[in-house]
Amino acid sequence: MIKTLGAKKFNSYANRGMTLEADLSATNEFYLVNDIAVIYKKPTPITISKVNYPSRVEAVIKEGYFRTPSTTDYNGIYKGKYIDFEAKETKSSTSFPLNNIHAHQIEHLKRICNHGGIGFLIVRFTTINKTFFLSYEVLEDFMNSSDRKSIPLSYFMDKGYIIKDRYNPRVDYISILDKLYFGGSL
Amino acid sequence: MIKTLGAKKFNSYANRGMTLEADLSATNEFYLVNDIAVIYKKPTPITISKVNYPSRVEAVIKEGYFRTPSTTDYNGIYKGKYIDFEAKETKSSTSFPLNNIHAHQIEHLKRICNHGGIGFLIVRFTTINKTFFLSYEVLEDFMNSSDRKSIPLSYFMDKGYIIKDRYNPRVDYISILDKLYFGGSL
Repeated sequence: MIKTLGAKKFNSYANRGMTLEADLSATNEFYLVNDIAVIYKKPTPITISKVNYPSRVEAVIKEGYFRTPSTTDYNGIYKGKYIDFEAKETKSSTSFPLNNIHAHQIEHLKRICNHGGIGFLIVRFTTINKTFFLSYEVLEDFMNSSDRKSIPLSYFMDKGYIIKDRYNPRVDYISILDKLYFGGSL
Repeated sequence: MIKTLGAKKFNSYANRGMTLEADLSATNEFYLVNDIAVIYKKPTPITISKVNYPSRVEAVIKEGYFRTPSTTDYNGIYKGKYIDFEAKETKSSTSFPLNNIHAHQIEHLKRICNHGGIGFLIVRFTTINKTFFLSYEVLEDFMNSSDRKSIPLSYFMDKGYIIKDRYNPRVDYISILDKLYFGGSL
C-alpha cells in the first residue's frame, strides 16, 4: 500500500502535466509544514446569488458568478517580509502575453512594493517547461520602456530568474527571494 | 440629490446596524485610496462542483459548498509589516465565545507572529457597541492561563484596546497599530 502511494507520488512529480497552480500548492504546503514561510493562494472571488439550506448546518450554493480579482492570487510572509505574487502559465514558447494579468493586479503589485513588500510574477512557459521569477520592478521597467503587448522569453532570460524544477519543494521561489532580497548569492 | 446622498451617508454611519464587515470594508478602502495601507478581506473559500457555460465568456456556478477557511479573513501590508487579523461580532454583552474562531485560524495567527508579522483580532460587542483590538499575544496568554471557553469583556477592557467609532475611517485599527508597534503613544 505504502509502495503504491510512493509510486503515485513519484509519477505525479515526473508527469510534466502538473499545473503551476498544483506545483505552487505543494510548494507552499512544504514551506508551511517546514516553518519556512506562510504563503497561501487566495480563494477565487465569487458573487453568490442563490443559496439553499437543506439542513441547519449545510448550505448549498445554487447560483454564483466569478468576479474579477482585485489583487494577486498569492500572498503571505517570509522572514518578516510581506510577499505578494501572481502566477501564470502560457503555452507560447516565445513570449508571455500581458493581457494574462489584469491592470489592477499590476497596480496592486506596485502598491505592495511602494509599501515595502516584495512583489513579483511567476510565469511558466509550459511548452518549453521553464518557470521564471520576474520581480515587479523589472516588469515595470518593461512596461515603461516598451509598447509591446507581450514580454519576450528573452526578457525573462535576461532580467528574470529560472526557478529550477525540484522534487520538493517543486517550485522553490523562496531560493530566489533569498538571493535577491536576503543577502544570498546567485 | 447631493443633499439626499449626504443625509443617507450620515444615516448609515449613525445607524448602529452597520456590520463590522461593512465597516472594515469601508475602512480598508479608505486606507487604500489614501495610500496608508494595502489590506484586503480574502474571498470566502468555496468548492465548486457544477458550472454552466451558457456562452464563451460567461460561467454560472450551479453547485458549490462553503469550505472552512484555513487562514484568517484579512491580511495585507502596513509600513512594510505583514498584517493579519480575524474580525468577529458577538451579541453577548459579557464575553466573546472562543468557538467563533477556528483552531487553525489561531494556529495561523501564531505562525504569522513567529515569522515577524502582526496578528490580532478585532471583536465587536454589538449589544454594547464597543469594538476591541486584541493582539494575538494577549489572546495566547488568555488561552494558556484559562480553561474558559469565552473571553470576558473585562479581559478586553484590561488587555485590549478600544477602537473608537469614527466617521472615516470607521474602524481605525491602524491607529492602534501605530501606538503598539510603530512608536506612537496611547
